[in-house]
Amino acid sequence: MPDVQHMKATMRRYADLFNAGDHVAVADLYADDAVIEDPVGKRPVEGRAAIEKFYADSIAAGAKLVAHEVRGSYGNRSAMRFSADLPGLHIDGIEVMTFDDGGKVVRMEAFWGPDDFQAV
Amino acid sequence: MPDVQHMKATMRRYADLFNAGDHVAVADLYADDAVIEDPVGKRPVEGRAAIEKFYADSIAAGAKLVAHEVRGSYGNRSAMRFSADLPGLHIDGIEVMTFDDGGKVVRMEAFWGPDDFQAV
Repeated sequence: MPDVQHMKATMRRYADLFNAGDHVAVADLYADDAVIEDPVGKRPVEGRAAIEKFYADSIAAGAKLVAHEVRGSYGNRSAMRFSADLPGLHIDGIEVMTFDDGGKVVRMEAFWGPDDFQAV
Repeated sequence: MPDVQHMKATMRRYADLFNAGDHVAVADLYADDAVIEDPVGKRPVEGRAAIEKFYADSIAAGAKLVAHEVRGSYGNRSAMRFSADLPGLHIDGIEVMTFDDGGKVVRMEAFWGPDDFQAV
């Protein structure tokens, strides 16, 4: 079972690395066969190569993340409220990450829907 | 697929009904075979009778909920940040609900861990 402090720190580190523009370091937080569902209900991003491209594209688009409240659990998952700003777009969401025993993220799910973003 | 506005409204209604002390109405939001994991990683509460008792006990203990930001998705799940106050205890968490096609909650997961509550 991953340590709860590790899980919470990973969520904040995720935002920091993303904002530093380091898509490889962001992808390194994930297990090789990880799955990203962002937003939940849309086609998932699966596996290391696709995940690295997903973050490279997001960073290239000018996206920036803010990690707000981060919450743990007694299991292998943690959650945080986040916001994201892209040129012309603001998104408010909640993210859940699931970890493997080695502390890598095996699944990331971002909850935001049709009325959780707005043109800015 | 449940409507995103229904999912978000259900999360707020859940807190309202809970705070009104109506454990039966809260349990009515759930499907008969629903599962509650609160907190995530602890033993789940499964099925209508157990769910009704879970909320009856929580309400009898004097718990009150605040629904903060509620977020949707493009699937059958929604999420919210919440806080809960019980006599002597404050909890900060994030909840995820999964819905069936009829709009009932089939799974509720509450993310809060060992450092997300405090004696007050």
